[in-house]
Amino acid sequence: MKLAASLTLAASAIALCSPAAAQFAKPEDALKYRQSALFIMGQHFGRIGAMANGRVPYDAKVAVENAEVVAEMARLPWVGFGPGYDKVSPTRAKPEIWTEQAKFREHNEKLVGETQKLLAAAKTNNLDNLKAAFTATAGTCKACHDNFRRD
Amino acid sequence: MKLAASLTLAASAIALCSPAAAQFAKPEDALKYRQSALFIMGQHFGRIGAMANGRVPYDAKVAVENAEVVAEMARLPWVGFGPGYDKVSPTRAKPEIWTEQAKFREHNEKLVGETQKLLAAAKTNNLDNLKAAFTATAGTCKACHDNFRRD
Repeated sequence: MKLAASLTLAASAIALCSPAAAQFAKPEDALKYRQSALFIMGQHFGRIGAMANGRVPYDAKVAVENAEVVAEMARLPWVGFGPGYDKVSPTRAKPEIWTEQAKFREHNEKLVGETQKLLAAAKTNNLDNLKAAFTATAGTCKACHDNFRRD
Repeated sequence: MKLAASLTLAASAIALCSPAAAQFAKPEDALKYRQSALFIMGQHFGRIGAMANGRVPYDAKVAVENAEVVAEMARLPWVGFGPGYDKVSPTRAKPEIWTEQAKFREHNEKLVGETQKLLAAAKTNNLDNLKAAFTATAGTCKACHDNFRRD
């Protein structure tokens, strides 16, 4: 890897790692950590989706509460995909996460940004805004899964 | 259960449930959710403990970042211990969680309060304050585990 790319990646990793300041005792903890954060995010994102898709009545307060957790969770999992955590299983994580870390980090950052927009949209108390932000966020989930998660 | 106690419990449950607005698709999701939140909390709390106990150098910024996640996580797991989620395993959760829900909820609320104090202490940028709040928070963890978690 070129030095410049390496430094960019390192800076990006630090920015994303910062909230977690990760020091996992063992690789299994990194796996459990990332899966835990993504599971919690998925649960709360799903509740927003249920409102966005009309399966449950729209409740602006509940939307904000869920979006807060989604935005908070979106910051966490990435340290669990750090160097040395590629050999632990069971996982659907593709090896490309570690061989294409710069690209993976771009997806992470995109999700962090979109979930912040989702929270902002939820706070407008407008269902159409929530729907649009939900769709945009779901797109970033899918893009990353298509590239970096096994079926 | 007396009606007054029942209403108090219901109000307490609603207050704690509110951030999650839980609607788990299946009991297994409730189990995974509560275990995920508690695991993430434990990871970040452990990093604060490492500083409080002198195993790693004190870093005020890192302490705040970890305390933020701890305080956020402390709000989440309890909906996963709600009615109907007592028969799912593997779990170390004791049946008393469901037969003594009012007492269990008191422990939950205590933890939420202590983790908020922990965050406030971290923000003072004073290691002694952090140590004191860490010890107090750890005490609430232990008290609940002693009562409601199998060895």
